[in-house]
Parts: sequence; C-alpha cells; structure tokens
Amino acid sequence: MTDNAKPVIGITMGDPAGVGPEITCKMFADKTVYDFCRPLVIGDTACLSEGMKVGKVSLQLNSIKKASEGKFVPGTIDVIDLHNVDIKSLKMGEPQAMAGKACVEYIKRAVELATVGEIDAIVTAPINKKAMNMGGYKYSGHTELLADLTGTKDFAMLLVTGPLKVIHVSTHVSLAEAIQRVTKERVVTVIKLADQALKQLGTPHPRIAVAGLNPHAGEDGMFGREEINVISPAVESAKKDGVDVSGPIAPDTVFVRAKNGEYDVVVAMYHDQGHVAIKMLGFQLGVNVSIGLPIIRTSVDHGTAYRRAGLRLGTGDASSLIEATKLAAQMAKSRTKH
Amino acid sequence: MTDNAKPVIGITMGDPAGVGPEITCKMFADKTVYDFCRPLVIGDTACLSEGMKVGKVSLQLNSIKKASEGKFVPGTIDVIDLHNVDIKSLKMGEPQAMAGKACVEYIKRAVELATVGEIDAIVTAPINKKAMNMGGYKYSGHTELLADLTGTKDFAMLLVTGPLKVIHVSTHVSLAEAIQRVTKERVVTVIKLADQALKQLGTPHPRIAVAGLNPHAGEDGMFGREEINVISPAVESAKKDGVDVSGPIAPDTVFVRAKNGEYDVVVAMYHDQGHVAIKMLGFQLGVNVSIGLPIIRTSVDHGTAYRRAGLRLGTGDASSLIEATKLAAQMAKSRTKH
Repeated sequence: MTDNAKPVIGITMGDPAGVGPEITCKMFADKTVYDFCRPLVIGDTACLSEGMKVGKVSLQLNSIKKASEGKFVPGTIDVIDLHNVDIKSLKMGEPQAMAGKACVEYIKRAVELATVGEIDAIVTAPINKKAMNMGGYKYSGHTELLADLTGTKDFAMLLVTGPLKVIHVSTHVSLAEAIQRVTKERVVTVIKLADQALKQLGTPHPRIAVAGLNPHAGEDGMFGREEINVISPAVESAKKDGVDVSGPIAPDTVFVRAKNGEYDVVVAMYHDQGHVAIKMLGFQLGVNVSIGLPIIRTSVDHGTAYRRAGLRLGTGDASSLIEATKLAAQMAKSRTKH
Repeated sequence: MTDNAKPVIGITMGDPAGVGPEITCKMFADKTVYDFCRPLVIGDTACLSEGMKVGKVSLQLNSIKKASEGKFVPGTIDVIDLHNVDIKSLKMGEPQAMAGKACVEYIKRAVELATVGEIDAIVTAPINKKAMNMGGYKYSGHTELLADLTGTKDFAMLLVTGPLKVIHVSTHVSLAEAIQRVTKERVVTVIKLADQALKQLGTPHPRIAVAGLNPHAGEDGMFGREEINVISPAVESAKKDGVDVSGPIAPDTVFVRAKNGEYDVVVAMYHDQGHVAIKMLGFQLGVNVSIGLPIIRTSVDHGTAYRRAGLRLGTGDASSLIEATKLAAQMAKSRTKH
C-alpha cells in the first residue's frame, strides 16, 4: 500500500450458517465504506447470494482470484471465492462441520494474503467455536487460531467501545485458571502490548491503567496478595522501560476513571472484569482487535446469532462490522506512515 | 410504629474523623427528610457541632436519652449522644483507635435500639476498617459486624443503584477465596435472600437472575464447570421452592439485561462482578442494604473520604445518606404492613 492509497481490507465471511454473509452484504451496500478502504470478501459467492436475499440488498458479485483483480466500486462485492460450502445441504442457524471447516479456511487464506501483503488487514465476521471444533479445528476462538497460524506467542485481545479501550491478561478460560495466568511476565507483556496497540490506534503517548485482581485491589493485602506480589512489580517493571502506566487500581473504579478520560486503556486481569464494564456502556459498536500479531486484525464483538440467522429474519446489524473495518483501515494507514 | 406513623430511623454517625458527621448534619438540614421519617442520630454532639461548621449548616442539637424524647422537627438534630470522642485530640482524616472504637459503639447501640423496637431501622454513615481494627474490633466491614451483633449466619449485601439491584455471594475476600465460596448451599441462600429483599423493597413477585462465575457462564463447561456442578443445581433447587429465578447467565450480559428491566435483581458471584457493573452506571446515589439480619439496615455506598475530611473542605455529599434513609423508611413501612 502506498502512503495515499486506501488500504485493502479482507473481510472473512464467518460461519456460513450464521449472520456473517448477511451483515457482510449489508456492509458492502453502504457506499461510505469505500471512502476509507478497498474492501473484498474471502468467502463463498453462493452464501453471499443468500445473504443478499435475507438482508434485502442487491449487489453485483465479482469473483476474483487475487486482490489486484478487485474493482473496489460501490454496488459490487469483490470475492475471493473458496467454493467450500454446499449451499443446498447447509443448515442455517446450526453448528455443523462443513460450515465450521469453511470459515476456518477463509481465515487461513486471509492470513496468507495479509502475510504476503496482498491485503493490508483482516476483519473477521463471527464464527462459532462448536462449529469450528466440529469442522476439525480445536481452537477456543479467532484469536488463538490467528496466533497459531502466525506463530505468535505474546498476544492479547483489545476491546474498543465508545470511550473505553480494554485489553485482557486472559480471556476464554475459567476464572480459576484466569487467576493462575496473572503472572508478572504476562502482565508486563500485556502492558507493553497495550502501549503498542494504542500507538497503532493513533495515541502517541498512551496512559495505561492496570486493574487489580481482588476487591479494592486487595486493600493492602487484606483481600488477596496478587497486587503486592505480582501486579505492582509488573507495573514497576514496565515503568522502568518507559511506559506511562499506573496501578493496580481497584477494579470497580478503574473502568469509570478510564471512561471519564483519565486513562487511554485499561489492562483487565480477566475476561469478565473488562467485559462487564464494556457491556454496561451500552454501545452497539464494539470492536475486537488482536494485538501482538504480525498482521492487523479486527473483529465484530458479537457472535453468529444462529437463532436469528436460522429464521432468516434479515435483522442482522452491520454496524460493528463497519466499525471494525474502519478501525482496521486506520491501523493499516498508521502502520504505513511509521 | 403504627401503620400511619413515620418510621424512626437511627443514623449512626460513622467514623468521627471522616465525612460522617458533616454529611449527617447536611442531611438533617434537608427538611424533606422529615416527610418520610423521624430521624435521629446515634453519635457525639461535639463531632456534630464540628460537622455543622465544616458543612456550613446551622441546626439545634437536641441531646436525648431515648428515641421517644426526640422532637423530630426540621431545624433540630435529635442525638443519642454517647460522649465517646475527645474532640480536642481527634485527628480529622486519619484512622485512629478512639474514632474506630467510637463508631462501633454507635452501631452497637443502634442494634440494641432496633432489636427492642425503639427505632425502626438503622442507616449507617461510613466507617473505616483500619480504624475499626485499631479500635479493637476485628471485622472486615459493617455487614460482618452487624451479623455478629445480631447472631446472623445467612446474610448478604444488596447494592441498589438507579435501575440496578445486585446481591453478592461474597464481598470482601480475595478472588481466589470468592471462587471457593460459590457453593450450592450459599447460592441457594443468596437467591432466597434476594427474593426476601425484593419483597421488602416492594416487589411482590421478584424476577431473579443468577450470574455465572466463568466467562460466557462456562460455555457448556469449556471454561470452567462451576455453572454445571454448583450454580445450575442451586437455581433448580430454588425454583422448586417457588422462587422465580433464571440462570446461570453470562456475567457480561446479565447486568445489562437487568438494567433494561428483564430482571429485578442479579445474584453476583463475587464483589467486582457486581461492583464493576454498578459503578459503570455512573449514579451518585448508591445504597447498600444488609439482607438477612433481623433488623433493617441500609448504608451509604461510599467510604470515610478521609483525605477531604482532613482538609475540612465541606464538600461532603449527603445524597447517598438521604437515599439510604429513604430506602430504610420504605422497608420499615413495608415490614409494618405485612
């Protein structure tokens, strides 16, 4: 990508039995998307045809072999078609092996394209863990799959919602396991990933807040000692390396303070610490960003919506997908500049 | 209390070195308080005189021996004066043994008065754990002290903030310890305490939601098995006993659903699950309610604000105290009716 060109964004279509095809088509029907990027889909044209019917949008499908063949004009969907869904046997709204396998293949192809620079970033429509596992891929989610495909050890998930950005020490593990994962090494890593992520997102000097693990951040060791033994030393270590970081701060106040502008990002100690805070904001436009990968990847913050997809209601909302694409484009531009 | 009389509410003054005396005086300066109750203070007149100076309000102090001597008229503070603070040696804004001991004595007296029916409910201004411990009382907070004074085994803390009510399986313990406290017996107890509490607060048929412990409520056991082994059986057990209860529900959606009116109260599995949700609402008027005690007790949802109290800024906000008094009066009236 040259400095002035719009980034090429590869949208993986997600689980064919879910809301992915529908919201992908709805996004391409929104002409403003072309203002900030050159979007293409890695998916299946037969599914997208169905997605248009369900979503009540009418666009031209342009099957391409590589990104350079894309037209990138409103009214068209440029598709790298993997022909991996038998639309007649697809059961909408249900986890199934064919669909689970297909959606992983979109992601694998997207990673290949991003790695060689044929696309500038990946935006992923929702997949379903159970379907993915039925399809033969034993991952707990997108992020773990992407880390494996790119050979990445240190990664984290950043949630961006309205005024609040939260990065997580761990995500899809039990709460008991999450406590075990709060190690000094991991907390330092995530603080630094947060610093890197915020810079990519356009904040040159990120102010990072680190949440405690225990109520009142342990209240001087009265309710747990992880703050004293693990989190404080991690914060001090990152500070020595020049990161602007504060904490540990009581979990029930740190998100409010960040929301009010005191910090640019919060390092959450476990999934629900961050997710409860984020969801309470009530925004519909959350975006997930994988941090630490060698490629840029953002994602919608919702699932496959199987129930509604199965009923072919046509109520799928493309807002989060559009927002995720916007953020991916912004990160791609920022990377080109630096 | 007769059916038509306004309930007599005993306000414990809280830590003399904190914001308690100031906000107590400010509350009494608000005449509307007398519209819904007959308030009196259990505290120390010398401290209240100081509180008036700091808070810039001017009221008549009426020292009484028992509740029946109260005038209960605007412009007056009826005080059961325990004369237990040497105002000259009191260091404002610091934890100290004298103050920690004094504030526990207010609570002990209040419990005695409530137990014999001389007052109808207790509302507590903030205390400080460290001061209380220095004063010779080794409790982790108000609720544990009150449970001990009343010989109560099964109790829980309910937070009431704007549209959201949350009751907690555990509060001031480490997160690791909190996981241990999620037992079937305790979850059933807290579901039933929630049911009882909501009825006292005027909801005849409470709809109760139970949060999961793990991300996505464990996602069918993929991220932890407490939902399958402990929480679901507890919910089923309470259902059999006629309680309208649902769950376990994913922690990051259950509070949003309750806030939007789907449930009347959420059973949170640990302190921060509930507190992060509550604080993100951004309300200034939170109230704590001790559930399961033989007496009615509500509390402000903030601490002693030592720093500001020490500076004698006069910026203390009585809103939460007034809201707590209103709720206590409502519960007292509801109890009289039933």
